[in-house]
Amino acid sequence: MNDPFESRFPQIKIEDYQQFVGPQVVERVRAKMEKLQDIHITNISSTYYGGGVAELLSSVTLLMNSSGISTGWRILQGTSDFFGVTKKMHNALQGSTINLTDRKTSLYEEVIYENALRNHIRHDFVIVHDPQPLPIIRHYKKNGPWIWRCHLDLSSPNPILWDYLRPFVEMYDAVIVSIPEYLQKLNTPQFCFMPAIDPFTLKNRQLSEQEIQERLNHYNIPTDLPLVVQISRFDKFKDPEGVIEAFEIARKQVDATLVLLGAPATDDPEGAQLYEDILERRSERIIIMSQDDTALVNALQQKASVVLQKSIKEGFGLTVSEAMWKGTPVIGGNVGGIRYQIENGVNGYLVSSINEAAMRIVEILKNPDLRHRLGKNARKTVQEKFLLIRLFEQYLDLFNSFETIYRTKSEVAFHTNPLDKK
Amino acid sequence: MNDPFESRFPQIKIEDYQQFVGPQVVERVRAKMEKLQDIHITNISSTYYGGGVAELLSSVTLLMNSSGISTGWRILQGTSDFFGVTKKMHNALQGSTINLTDRKTSLYEEVIYENALRNHIRHDFVIVHDPQPLPIIRHYKKNGPWIWRCHLDLSSPNPILWDYLRPFVEMYDAVIVSIPEYLQKLNTPQFCFMPAIDPFTLKNRQLSEQEIQERLNHYNIPTDLPLVVQISRFDKFKDPEGVIEAFEIARKQVDATLVLLGAPATDDPEGAQLYEDILERRSERIIIMSQDDTALVNALQQKASVVLQKSIKEGFGLTVSEAMWKGTPVIGGNVGGIRYQIENGVNGYLVSSINEAAMRIVEILKNPDLRHRLGKNARKTVQEKFLLIRLFEQYLDLFNSFETIYRTKSEVAFHTNPLDKK
Repeated sequence: MNDPFESRFPQIKIEDYQQFVGPQVVERVRAKMEKLQDIHITNISSTYYGGGVAELLSSVTLLMNSSGISTGWRILQGTSDFFGVTKKMHNALQGSTINLTDRKTSLYEEVIYENALRNHIRHDFVIVHDPQPLPIIRHYKKNGPWIWRCHLDLSSPNPILWDYLRPFVEMYDAVIVSIPEYLQKLNTPQFCFMPAIDPFTLKNRQLSEQEIQERLNHYNIPTDLPLVVQISRFDKFKDPEGVIEAFEIARKQVDATLVLLGAPATDDPEGAQLYEDILERRSERIIIMSQDDTALVNALQQKASVVLQKSIKEGFGLTVSEAMWKGTPVIGGNVGGIRYQIENGVNGYLVSSINEAAMRIVEILKNPDLRHRLGKNARKTVQEKFLLIRLFEQYLDLFNSFETIYRTKSEVAFHTNPLDKK
Repeated sequence: MNDPFESRFPQIKIEDYQQFVGPQVVERVRAKMEKLQDIHITNISSTYYGGGVAELLSSVTLLMNSSGISTGWRILQGTSDFFGVTKKMHNALQGSTINLTDRKTSLYEEVIYENALRNHIRHDFVIVHDPQPLPIIRHYKKNGPWIWRCHLDLSSPNPILWDYLRPFVEMYDAVIVSIPEYLQKLNTPQFCFMPAIDPFTLKNRQLSEQEIQERLNHYNIPTDLPLVVQISRFDKFKDPEGVIEAFEIARKQVDATLVLLGAPATDDPEGAQLYEDILERRSERIIIMSQDDTALVNALQQKASVVLQKSIKEGFGLTVSEAMWKGTPVIGGNVGGIRYQIENGVNGYLVSSINEAAMRIVEILKNPDLRHRLGKNARKTVQEKFLLIRLFEQYLDLFNSFETIYRTKSEVAFHTNPLDKK
């Protein structure tokens, strides 16, 4: 590579992780990049923006490219009707009901077909994300393994939808889910890749004390008392009301300020309503904000004495690792992916009730030694398990293993490709 | 091509235009497709959605692919800061001022660079649309001609911005603008491709009388009196207030209903304000609507006795051709691209004042013979000059001519490509 722009716009490279994980890990990962220097990968997902999937893909694709592995990212083009249908599918894969009419499946398949006509995919590896682009695989002749990467909570997918989607899923050569609980009964090799955080972004890099104060002052967030923070969409499964109740119980024993921060729900009328309702609970010491400000998220996670993620249901809950990375102890709901991040009493607490959450808030706020010990362990956990380099290495391992996997599949389904004229 | 999905989801093909333009034209165009059957083209633009550029690209790319010319479409990924900057550039290219700071150009160039890292472009032809992705060319080694297609009104670009962008523009092998007035002083061959309409979309296909009534009833639009319609963003340059005044003057002589329809301005506070202000002018016979409903646009254009596009400034004004295609006479402002669509007194009227617009409304509404004659000529104009097949043929001519153009350029600038490892 000889890139005159690299010095002007430096990119994160795998070596930059050495400060966090040491030279041995970086060396091990570098060795795994070697065989992949000539391959071309593409990702297909539904959007560049909004939510953890896009955030992660943005970082992963840049890191792949700076490692010499050519990696692209295609986005579906769809009508609002199409995205209406795929949103229902998204929810139904996470357990809600769906009225799966012919009109819906036909619209879904037609838009995917049109996308296939415009996307000429002959890559060595193709990674398709979530249900929106799933059926696109059937329109191509494979030039290498295709991987379906599902970021959703697949613990109890709607059976009617799953019956419809499974034939598409089984055209893939591998499926990746986020935690073991989401593995399915499938005739396809499955893998668990837990999400991870990018320590170099504005959301996760170390801010100076001055930068933190500037952000908090900007929104008039007082720092005279310890901060108790939850950063989460306003969604019933994130239990913001439970957080407020736990905080009010805790405040009888120790004074503090609560900040609930969520990004504005542009596409979620239920979330907008919940936010309106909960605004009534605002007071001098209960701050409720709807803001899309990455630096504020970072400042709050860094400044907080304790962060809550009191979810009742949670796909993975990467905000837990985000806060833990800043050395802040997290009290998390004992559900889903949170249990893979928090080890109870070691690097934070897992709770199953409002009272338990209140008790843990009091414990942490009253005991600076405990807070520091939990916070130190929290950072160590993320350093070892939830930095992007770990996820990156898992991808490399998967790509490197494919030569074997691909050959042992007794037959590889080659689908007719409308785009291939040869 | 052997595509089992084609019968389920039939695509528009060049033969489908025969009903509108006859077999000779279709044969002529088909012949020009032949040499291009093995090439691979890609487009790069800033978004799939909103506005005429995306609408046109959606149709053109599908038609290219159904003609056996593999054509892709890539979208920029950017931050909201980035799109803030490119929007200012967009406006400044159309004549407004811009404070072109180093911060802005650096952000612009950095995001473009990151996009180049993720997009591995080695296509035979690359078409880059509008200013947002313009500098991306410098990050690639060309594998064929690169074309900059600018859809904006370039009649008086801001000179400071143009000085900054011109070096990027001159790296291209051709520049396409919409009308001769937008040609620039450049060391690059330039072409004029006027926009065109796709006659097969929901916006432009023939609706049945029943479909039309259903749409109009849905929004309680009365059809007891002739309809006078303007379909346009709520933007001062579209002069919606002038339309209302002209209508009120005309109504002293002939009764009618006015409908002003614009799509909701999601990204334009000025437009939202203008809409709020103008709502005060609503009355029983003045209907003002903010709706994003393509079928309604079609129904109104088909049902209207006369359509206005009373712009004071207009890039091209494709809504004029849309209405003319439906055999509806259009009264257009005597500006920009409208003058290429309307021939005064032959297939519509060009006007320069509110009084003139009022007079033409009265003339058309009072004289059904005139209305039918203008409408018939209007449809014929679009049939001959503004259907997508004409634009498609221009692209084919350009691609086919490139062998010559490319070779006669004394030297082709090969830019260093950070992505090319060979």
